[in-house]
Amino acid sequence: MTRLEQQIEFIVEIDKLKEITRQTYVSAGDRKENDAEHAWHFAMMAVLLSEYANEEIDVLKVVKMALLHDLVEIDAGDTYLYDEEGAKTKAAREEKAADRLFHMLPEDQGQEFYALWREFEDKQTPEARFAASLDRLQPILLNDATDGKAWEEHGITEEQVRKQNDHVKKGSKQIWEYLQQVFDKNIEKGKIQRS
Amino acid sequence: MTRLEQQIEFIVEIDKLKEITRQTYVSAGDRKENDAEHAWHFAMMAVLLSEYANEEIDVLKVVKMALLHDLVEIDAGDTYLYDEEGAKTKAAREEKAADRLFHMLPEDQGQEFYALWREFEDKQTPEARFAASLDRLQPILLNDATDGKAWEEHGITEEQVRKQNDHVKKGSKQIWEYLQQVFDKNIEKGKIQRS
Repeated sequence: MTRLEQQIEFIVEIDKLKEITRQTYVSAGDRKENDAEHAWHFAMMAVLLSEYANEEIDVLKVVKMALLHDLVEIDAGDTYLYDEEGAKTKAAREEKAADRLFHMLPEDQGQEFYALWREFEDKQTPEARFAASLDRLQPILLNDATDGKAWEEHGITEEQVRKQNDHVKKGSKQIWEYLQQVFDKNIEKGKIQRS
Repeated sequence: MTRLEQQIEFIVEIDKLKEITRQTYVSAGDRKENDAEHAWHFAMMAVLLSEYANEEIDVLKVVKMALLHDLVEIDAGDTYLYDEEGAKTKAAREEKAADRLFHMLPEDQGQEFYALWREFEDKQTPEARFAASLDRLQPILLNDATDGKAWEEHGITEEQVRKQNDHVKKGSKQIWEYLQQVFDKNIEKGKIQRS
């Protein structure tokens, strides 16, 4: 197998990301979005909103994180942000998936992808902190656009949204402030339950 | 409206890209993919295959082209590559869409997006030529993975695929050569009609 054939085998394999359904509804409200759609939207936000990062960032690195951050869900499935049971096994399931998937690539690219995924998960660099902020902003914008549909279905509370999205301020103070307005509005409307 | 609010309005508007269905089936073969999924896959290919560009390229620029190149289809709809009637009005429909959509952004970003889209369409720079190659490779890989399903449905001929994908060699000689193998195999199997 040539290097190109190996890369193409990986590219066809990750097409499965389009089958991984999330809990967020698309803005039309008629269906839930999938991981590939989410990754596209998140990458686009990295391009458009980089000026709001608290620290200087390498935009291409954030975009790469956006494109690949959920690939592990091809094997591990999507774990809903507010699923406490699923959260307990998430790290182990995803680590195993990363091991399988990234080993499909030529070694140099497999190592780069694993390192970017690990960096994203660990949130210890400017790019990872900013990427984590956008990864939170994306579904919140869709929840807001669909009048809180996913929040209502899951009975999400103010305490949950404040706690799970608190880290956004480490990536972008301005985006964090914007989110507080969205939360306040949806608590007021009863879409997010008042704690 | 603040600059951030304006950007967010655009980000929510372009969520509609997820509703624009293409003619290509996802690798699972059970449904057609949409433009957002295609754009994610194409952007991922720009990251993984940049080494095959004939000329030196700015990868971030190609990724941006991948992410935004089909936004105009939110208004103009998807025009199938082999639809000769649709091709006649495509440019005018898409130009009008670009005008509406990119004017939603702050002026600097609207101008950047319009320029990147125009550059992609014109195929006159290294990045645009390489992006055009990947935009062709992506559906061909899925057609091949689904045993030529979309080609068969549309009765696509060897003459059509050779002609419509000839420009791939201007972006990447190696990818163009790979495509010839894929075409040969699918002509042999009768998935693409021999001309």
